[in-house]
Amino acid sequence: MLNQKSISDFETGEDGHLYLLLTKIEKKVARTGKEFLTMELRDISGTISAKMWDGFEVFYASAKEGMIVKVDCKFDEYNGTPQLIVNRIRPVNESDNVVHSDFLPRSQRDLEEMKTEWTEIINNLSNSNLIELIKKIFDDETKEKYFNVPAGKAWHHAYIHGLLEHTLEIIKICKTACDIHPELNRDLLIAGAILHDFGKVEELTFETNFDYTDKGRLIGHIVIAAIRIEEKAKEIGGFPEELKNQLIHLVLSHQGKLEHASPVIPKMPEAVVLYYADEMSAKSNAYLNVVKNERQGDSNWTNFIRLAETAIYIPPIDEDTDSPKESLFD
Amino acid sequence: MLNQKSISDFETGEDGHLYLLLTKIEKKVARTGKEFLTMELRDISGTISAKMWDGFEVFYASAKEGMIVKVDCKFDEYNGTPQLIVNRIRPVNESDNVVHSDFLPRSQRDLEEMKTEWTEIINNLSNSNLIELIKKIFDDETKEKYFNVPAGKAWHHAYIHGLLEHTLEIIKICKTACDIHPELNRDLLIAGAILHDFGKVEELTFETNFDYTDKGRLIGHIVIAAIRIEEKAKEIGGFPEELKNQLIHLVLSHQGKLEHASPVIPKMPEAVVLYYADEMSAKSNAYLNVVKNERQGDSNWTNFIRLAETAIYIPPIDEDTDSPKESLFD
Amino acid sequence: MLNQKSISDFETGEDGHLYLLLTKIEKKVARTGKEFLTMELRDISGTISAKMWDGFEVFYASAKEGMIVKVDCKFDEYNGTPQLIVNRIRPVNESDNVVHSDFLPRSQRDLEEMKTEWTEIINNLSNSNLIELIKKIFDDETKEKYFNVPAGKAWHHAYIHGLLEHTLEIIKICKTACDIHPELNRDLLIAGAILHDFGKVEELTFETNFDYTDKGRLIGHIVIAAIRIEEKAKEIGGFPEELKNQLIHLVLSHQGKLEHASPVIPKMPEAVVLYYADEMSAKSNAYLNVVKNERQGDSNWTNFIRLAETAIYIPPIDEDTDSPKESLFD
Amino acid sequence: MLNQKSISDFETGEDGHLYLLLTKIEKKVARTGKEFLTMELRDISGTISAKMWDGFEVFYASAKEGMIVKVDCKFDEYNGTPQLIVNRIRPVNESDNVVHSDFLPRSQRDLEEMKTEWTEIINNLSNSNLIELIKKIFDDETKEKYFNVPAGKAWHHAYIHGLLEHTLEIIKICKTACDIHPELNRDLLIAGAILHDFGKVEELTFETNFDYTDKGRLIGHIVIAAIRIEEKAKEIGGFPEELKNQLIHLVLSHQGKLEHASPVIPKMPEAVVLYYADEMSAKSNAYLNVVKNERQGDSNWTNFIRLAETAIYIPPIDEDTDSPKESLFD
Amino acid sequence: MLNQKSISDFETGEDGHLYLLLTKIEKKVARTGKEFLTMELRDISGTISAKMWDGFEVFYASAKEGMIVKVDCKFDEYNGTPQLIVNRIRPVNESDNVVHSDFLPRSQRDLEEMKTEWTEIINNLSNSNLIELIKKIFDDETKEKYFNVPAGKAWHHAYIHGLLEHTLEIIKICKTACDIHPELNRDLLIAGAILHDFGKVEELTFETNFDYTDKGRLIGHIVIAAIRIEEKAKEIGGFPEELKNQLIHLVLSHQGKLEHASPVIPKMPEAVVLYYADEMSAKSNAYLNVVKNERQGDSNWTNFIRLAETAIYIPPIDEDTDSPKESLFD
Amino acid sequence: MLNQKSISDFETGEDGHLYLLLTKIEKKVARTGKEFLTMELRDISGTISAKMWDGFEVFYASAKEGMIVKVDCKFDEYNGTPQLIVNRIRPVNESDNVVHSDFLPRSQRDLEEMKTEWTEIINNLSNSNLIELIKKIFDDETKEKYFNVPAGKAWHHAYIHGLLEHTLEIIKICKTACDIHPELNRDLLIAGAILHDFGKVEELTFETNFDYTDKGRLIGHIVIAAIRIEEKAKEIGGFPEELKNQLIHLVLSHQGKLEHASPVIPKMPEAVVLYYADEMSAKSNAYLNVVKNERQGDSNWTNFIRLAETAIYIPPIDEDTDSPKESLFD
Repeated sequence: MLNQKSISDFETGEDGHLYLLLTKIEKKVARTGKEFLTMELRDISGTISAKMWDGFEVFYASAKEGMIVKVDCKFDEYNGTPQLIVNRIRPVNESDNVVHSDFLPRSQRDLEEMKTEWTEIINNLSNSNLIELIKKIFDDETKEKYFNVPAGKAWHHAYIHGLLEHTLEIIKICKTACDIHPELNRDLLIAGAILHDFGKVEELTFETNFDYTDKGRLIGHIVIAAIRIEEKAKEIGGFPEELKNQLIHLVLSHQGKLEHASPVIPKMPEAVVLYYADEMSAKSNAYLNVVKNERQGDSNWTNFIRLAETAIYIPPIDEDTDSPKESLFD
Repeated sequence: MLNQKSISDFETGEDGHLYLLLTKIEKKVARTGKEFLTMELRDISGTISAKMWDGFEVFYASAKEGMIVKVDCKFDEYNGTPQLIVNRIRPVNESDNVVHSDFLPRSQRDLEEMKTEWTEIINNLSNSNLIELIKKIFDDETKEKYFNVPAGKAWHHAYIHGLLEHTLEIIKICKTACDIHPELNRDLLIAGAILHDFGKVEELTFETNFDYTDKGRLIGHIVIAAIRIEEKAKEIGGFPEELKNQLIHLVLSHQGKLEHASPVIPKMPEAVVLYYADEMSAKSNAYLNVVKNERQGDSNWTNFIRLAETAIYIPPIDEDTDSPKESLFD
Repeated sequence: MLNQKSISDFETGEDGHLYLLLTKIEKKVARTGKEFLTMELRDISGTISAKMWDGFEVFYASAKEGMIVKVDCKFDEYNGTPQLIVNRIRPVNESDNVVHSDFLPRSQRDLEEMKTEWTEIINNLSNSNLIELIKKIFDDETKEKYFNVPAGKAWHHAYIHGLLEHTLEIIKICKTACDIHPELNRDLLIAGAILHDFGKVEELTFETNFDYTDKGRLIGHIVIAAIRIEEKAKEIGGFPEELKNQLIHLVLSHQGKLEHASPVIPKMPEAVVLYYADEMSAKSNAYLNVVKNERQGDSNWTNFIRLAETAIYIPPIDEDTDSPKESLFD
Repeated sequence: MLNQKSISDFETGEDGHLYLLLTKIEKKVARTGKEFLTMELRDISGTISAKMWDGFEVFYASAKEGMIVKVDCKFDEYNGTPQLIVNRIRPVNESDNVVHSDFLPRSQRDLEEMKTEWTEIINNLSNSNLIELIKKIFDDETKEKYFNVPAGKAWHHAYIHGLLEHTLEIIKICKTACDIHPELNRDLLIAGAILHDFGKVEELTFETNFDYTDKGRLIGHIVIAAIRIEEKAKEIGGFPEELKNQLIHLVLSHQGKLEHASPVIPKMPEAVVLYYADEMSAKSNAYLNVVKNERQGDSNWTNFIRLAETAIYIPPIDEDTDSPKESLFD
Repeated sequence: MLNQKSISDFETGEDGHLYLLLTKIEKKVARTGKEFLTMELRDISGTISAKMWDGFEVFYASAKEGMIVKVDCKFDEYNGTPQLIVNRIRPVNESDNVVHSDFLPRSQRDLEEMKTEWTEIINNLSNSNLIELIKKIFDDETKEKYFNVPAGKAWHHAYIHGLLEHTLEIIKICKTACDIHPELNRDLLIAGAILHDFGKVEELTFETNFDYTDKGRLIGHIVIAAIRIEEKAKEIGGFPEELKNQLIHLVLSHQGKLEHASPVIPKMPEAVVLYYADEMSAKSNAYLNVVKNERQGDSNWTNFIRLAETAIYIPPIDEDTDSPKESLFD
Repeated sequence: MLNQKSISDFETGEDGHLYLLLTKIEKKVARTGKEFLTMELRDISGTISAKMWDGFEVFYASAKEGMIVKVDCKFDEYNGTPQLIVNRIRPVNESDNVVHSDFLPRSQRDLEEMKTEWTEIINNLSNSNLIELIKKIFDDETKEKYFNVPAGKAWHHAYIHGLLEHTLEIIKICKTACDIHPELNRDLLIAGAILHDFGKVEELTFETNFDYTDKGRLIGHIVIAAIRIEEKAKEIGGFPEELKNQLIHLVLSHQGKLEHASPVIPKMPEAVVLYYADEMSAKSNAYLNVVKNERQGDSNWTNFIRLAETAIYIPPIDEDTDSPKESLFD
């Protein structure tokens, strides 16, 4: 994995020699008639605008969005926002030994551990129809994508392996619900959790950047998943019709309300549990990320967070005594 | 077709000798300890409660909801609502020559004419992929159901052949939109209209009464149709991915708003046109039915209609001059 | 505990000799001029209307709502609803050996086990300020009420000890959230869970029936709890101001949205977790109760449940094969 | 009509010699103390900011917003937005032969054809009272304005003759509805369509720019039209009171919902039809304009369109095969 | 004014000899075949159902809804609701000396005093245009209706002279607002208050019962008033256009929000003041009426009041000490 | 009080020698590597950005936000927004004779007069419990804050002494309501008005700038006030429980709707009156301020005002005749 200083850690005026992912590029003409390049570049910590004034013709002729580049640059500021002034730039070659995934944020959890956890959950299901269905849906190619896709573009678990991490959290919460209520249909609930956001493998692109596909915008991950369940269940002889409809119901209703784009609302206890487990996993991840990343100077508050409809509070650290936070943990 | 006086046309005190559809039956015990039957019976004009006090044991032993029966009865009233007092009742046999469809309301339009209109619309499509897809979806059994299913349980086109009538209206309106805007994709729009409510063949039962199926409640007609389009398009070699996604988008978004249970909102001009054509057909049918059926004595207003969120106005007929209505038509 | 057949298990026409709780009583005059009593009586399974036509004068003179009575009666029906015809009635005396709690529904969980669980949770907190605060709030009298109070009047955990059961469920879910996110302030979160609905001890009456107090309607349990936390924290020297405000914030925001009567929305990750843990515990209890109690004959659906905004699905039991439900559990 | 290159077609760095409409002008002082002019200029394709640094004193002394000017200029860019640097500027005179309407967008449909269509519609009405009312409302001056006014400031049919084009579309859709439902009062519906947005002639200014009048903001086009119908109907002896109220009802309710500023909701089938015909005409025009004008580079999606609450999809053109679009039309 | 015991004060079983207003009448047939009358009768305290079993033929032949009748009757109860059993009934004649207004609730305030107050307010306006406009609108016939009309059908000031009482309250509150803010246009505000609900004279019938007219339902009092102001202002030479538009704006916006059926929202300080003065007068009247009329036995709470979206609290009277209420007044 | 030209009255290019309040300060590095200061400064008319390029090191070493400074500067413009170029800057000392309150907007009403009015209102209450409670709450330190705190950060009465002015307005309106309805509990209502926004003394900081405290954001002024009332009422022997609950209810419900952050809605006539009196005072102050401060050149309309959801109309002054406004006042 690439080891270099993050662009979010540079100060204005510093020089950088960095591998970066080229996400946008355009040639423009200045007032003086001089041509220059404007680019958007990203590393794992985020994106930055860049300008290049001289010597870019050769590079520009072969440049493509999605390409990894090596740049020599100076960190500058424009209208209060950081930007790069690029002095030299070239596409990387094999000897640079960098790959796309070096430039996209990824889950803090260990991937292999998560894969193992996920596989065991499936193996521990009792209902053979559900096991067969899940195995049919997750052929090798699909599983590869599913393990990599983020859970979203920006709000929660918005990083490589994010959907896997999110799904495992949901399952943990669902299992607690089953411990409380043994009458819940545990297999149905866990299968629903595994498949609820599965459609995101077709809804999102995540190879070079996180964005929606045309299909994602026109159909949405919820219906994509429902279609796939129906298709694969049909391939299994004697898959119970009721069970299939219940599973599709869990997927369709998991956003809980029509206005959140679920075409049906939860009509079974299992659907209600899945809805709240999903919300709890998503929101706690999102809020904790905001607390970690959005501290504003000395303030105890982040900026206004649109999706939370509020600023988030970051408790002050009490320096005189033991940190109250630490003393609160067991 | 059955020819008998409608239950809505009897007065309290009249006797009736009628074929009726038995939709509910229960045996109860009166305060005195005497057993009696309570039933719900329907003919084409609606449903009525019924009581039977004596001589029902033999009938009751073999009675089943959904059965057609012959009853001798007197029209009575209970708490201001009409009810039947049944004197004699028996299941019908073949020689009675009555069928279930005699007891369900049906479209006023001629069925064969509608079928012909519908078939010609499909034959006049230009896009061979869409034609093939529609033909694959409408195998004989499915077409039979599609021609019979009502467009809904109660509000608009809530009668046998209702979906077909509704669909033809929508197509007529969509064609007007295409005349205004030739840049609309006419084939896509018409295919979307044909398929938009197609899922109702699985969402509703309509053989003996109009009601929702379990699948209808758990999944809904919108996603049922999307699943079927995907399944059948896959069987066609080279069906364009974009076209399939657009068609599914039209079906998914045709209720126009998330809170109306569409999982995506319209994102193409064709989707917007389909949404409003559907609304116009549904609401004008519903309001005109209300005006026809809900006049309250001399009042110019119906009762409050919940789905319209208002009472509906019924213009008075001007008796002195020519009816203004007639004079207004060209 | 009282051992008698539940009023919900009697059939029309049966005779009963029962202890019941008198919740309403009124003397009326029939059209004929004859006086009679109308009463509402309850046992642990619910309430029933009753009429008494003769011989009630002595009883009526001393009758009070909230009194336990012994009745000889016949089960009857009026307008389709069960009612009792009372032949004899008298107040109970000590030798009857019945108490009010025999007539109110109560949690299925063992009370002592729940008390122990609750006490251990508090003893395992690390933050001494929070432990002291909780102990100050829960003096003996308050603790007694807190252990008895239902979590609500009708929707979820609406039975004696319901709040305790509900609180323990929330804590279990919160602990799962802390396992997933060790950076959550576990002590704060658990203290918030313990106190979030604490105000219900003053919001509700639950000795003879479940209803709101004047204070409950005018102020509400959320603000009642906030006031008590402030009051008791003040009595503790050096209780950190920030911690107190955070704890009150968790209580105030635990209904998640202003329109659900929280005067502030969640602004901390812990507040978000508490909100969803509360929702999950409440809704899964409510839906499972509905499934258990509201099955309608052979139907796979309950009646429309207003608070769920839908009918609830009750999966059919597959009788030919192993019950799918059982086979799904591990 | 003026024939010159549109300002939206110039590249940065090009020189222009153009007639433009001056919509705003202000003199400012630069940091250096030097005075300069900032202006907003428009042609038929939109507006652009402009700066003039020297030699503007004579012009400025007589300049007025709404004046047409001839400018010599260079196309420049400021903060990523195009702007003009004006070298010379003068008011036009008669010999320039340009008029205000050269600078405002206008309908693509032929005006005379639309006028003829509109006139024939009125002549074909059967109800003499409605014909007389419409003729009274549309005196020569009013008709002139009505034929010119846009249907709105920005969203749909926002160009000269836009209301006329919009109205004719609505009538076409309403006629289709009458073909489907002969029981609709066709004359009432068409009169309602003609008058529904009539108040916009007083609500909007459109001579030099599109904006709201004070009266438009304080009262709105809906009530303006209602007032005018009442006033003119009173001048007709024996105009039926019911017909007048129905017509005003159609105008008042044509935005369909209270929150869309209709003071009453539709309470007649004709009012419902008019509402949806208006929506369909407005939205299909708006979406098709967006598709035509807002394509973003290679993307299949426009930017987020606030009034549509989504980005709009623009299907890709399939270049290898026949354009799918063409092949779809019959 | 009629002096007789109110129907709300009779007990079941009592006999009555009363003048009542006949608001509905229908002949029905009992199960036994016997004909009988069902009627709705009202006095000043409300309405009651009635049945008459014998000897009604002569009366029925000439009976008309809206007629005043003399009845001999017994107070009875049906399904828990009071009803009358009528023994004899006849239309009143002149010698009975009763009039319709004896049977409708009316304001507790003295009519002449209110008229004087209202007239003085107008005479004290400074703006001669507004004075002339108001005088033109209130010709003798209109003034008569305006002084009598209730402010609504049921919720607030729902009694004869109610609009006048309501208007005077609003003006009193507006004057307080002008005392606080001398920069408010006092004449405009008071004229707006006088005219804001003026349209109710055409929206409501109130001679024999309180109900909506067809015009009231199709157009509504807000637009009716706007039309009348425009019409009458046109008759005044030189009435300032801006002033007229502002006055109409106040009337149109006085319900404050689009969803409350105002077609524009308040856009002037005076419009905002009028909106809140109207709300305060309406709601305080409504809540105080509820407190006065809806006490439920010993309870401190009324039933749930739909328009208030809550039950209303009625403070208990402290009997031991001085009534807290009295001691609170100065 | 400080007497100097307001920063909002300077033109670009002018020099200033001004006392200003330093509300933000940061050192930055320009592209050239040169360090400079960016600051935010305010006087009584508002805030302005400032840059300082040279000679700021000594000042910067001791600068603190909240400090008053003396600056020599030139008024400049950056991206269309005014900014200051600071040439010299120093902290003030005692001999400058300026205080923080010179830089914050304050009520136009005389403070002593308002204090007297407020004190008399309390002394004129009849209920000795309420008088004692209010006196306990307003100890000297609290009263000092209460007299100074603004009623909000930006929208209405957003200036020093604003809450006091706002409260007195509300009381005036409440007294009018009591004049209309003598059955209102006047003492309760006035005590509610005095305390309704009392919590703002802890919710807001207002010494150097107007902003929210942590406690204000986490708990809010409504619950802060409720807590204080409970605390202080407990200190009074025999304070009636009902009265306390009613008073807290008025405070909690004074924002009228749950979605406006009131945890209960008004359930007493007095609570309804307080709600509307608060709204009327707040909105009329806000709208009148907008009219006074936001006139845009010659336009009769302000910019769009987000909190009013509209632009506000400013009637034109008629210059030819007497000002209509003046002629309208009596």
